[in-house]
Amino acid sequence: MKNKERIEILPQKLVSWAKWFVKQQVSEGDICVDATVGNGFDTLFLAECVGPEGKVYGFDIQQAALAKTKKLLMEVGLLDRVYLFHDSHSHLGTYLSNNTVKAVMFNLGYLPGGDHTLTTKPETTILALKEALPLLTANGIITVVSYRGHPGAIEEYDSVKDFLSKINSKKYRVFSIDILNQEHLPPVLFVVHRYR
Amino acid sequence: MKNKERIEILPQKLVSWAKWFVKQQVSEGDICVDATVGNGFDTLFLAECVGPEGKVYGFDIQQAALAKTKKLLMEVGLLDRVYLFHDSHSHLGTYLSNNTVKAVMFNLGYLPGGDHTLTTKPETTILALKEALPLLTANGIITVVSYRGHPGAIEEYDSVKDFLSKINSKKYRVFSIDILNQEHLPPVLFVVHRYR
Repeated sequence: MKNKERIEILPQKLVSWAKWFVKQQVSEGDICVDATVGNGFDTLFLAECVGPEGKVYGFDIQQAALAKTKKLLMEVGLLDRVYLFHDSHSHLGTYLSNNTVKAVMFNLGYLPGGDHTLTTKPETTILALKEALPLLTANGIITVVSYRGHPGAIEEYDSVKDFLSKINSKKYRVFSIDILNQEHLPPVLFVVHRYR
Repeated sequence: MKNKERIEILPQKLVSWAKWFVKQQVSEGDICVDATVGNGFDTLFLAECVGPEGKVYGFDIQQAALAKTKKLLMEVGLLDRVYLFHDSHSHLGTYLSNNTVKAVMFNLGYLPGGDHTLTTKPETTILALKEALPLLTANGIITVVSYRGHPGAIEEYDSVKDFLSKINSKKYRVFSIDILNQEHLPPVLFVVHRYR
């Protein structure tokens, strides 16, 4: 078991890193947000983290994504703690109160298996991050997996990096994890930790 | 205790991150290397990690650094597991065999409290990294804290990043952790994980 944990902390995929960071912060009973439910894997992960007393709010502008996620959560019997909204993550603040959310996960880009031209966009992603920041409780975190391969991806990555580089360092710590030794441009993980 | 661990995993300083990654990989009885002993804090940390059956090899080209480190290790009674060498880390391979080392820690730049013009240099740092790579056992790691503030630091950072970006991805995974939201240029942590 100890060995298993060790392998887990140096995962190959950045989405696994994101989950790992979230898992360190989230306790049973917490409220978490999947800002981009996609195929629902992060929603499922968050639903497991928060336990029966917790709540997960999931957002997507594509009905197909919400349907897949709902199906997945039903299959594993965790839908009762999950609230899905057919809306843009740029409206997060409409649904949640400040200082109430332990973790917000963003996985940018397109819906895997869906229409690859329907992607998250810099403007709405930045709006969503602005909405997400005040929602965090103390010790809460935001994870953002940002891609650089598809058309428009680099622009979104640059916008996110620029925005996160300027947020208040007295309240939030922001760091990025880059995989370096790959030939193509791999995704980057950004983590925002509200430490005060 | 659980809460304490949680705080530890999102540390403020990159040197703490480096220690944290090392701690996940190192077991009692392992051999570790402090490639730049400086004031000896990483040597001490490694000596604690490897336990009474382990060994730590420490290198520095400054006698003052070795003297400070020796004093520190004596004070805590851990000098018996530590071997200090007055030599450049670019000669690591002379002292250690391939596939025997679990962790190598580099903390670049100058000796804190010493002569700030005596810094690690790109050429020898890259040589040292080349020497360190084959020393790693499976699941071994190298951590490099690289600065960007003092004269010549950016050049060294660029060299290290460039070198690490090109190493064999079939055997090593290389990632960097950057703190983003700070006004000055903070240090960067590079981690090399031999995963195969």
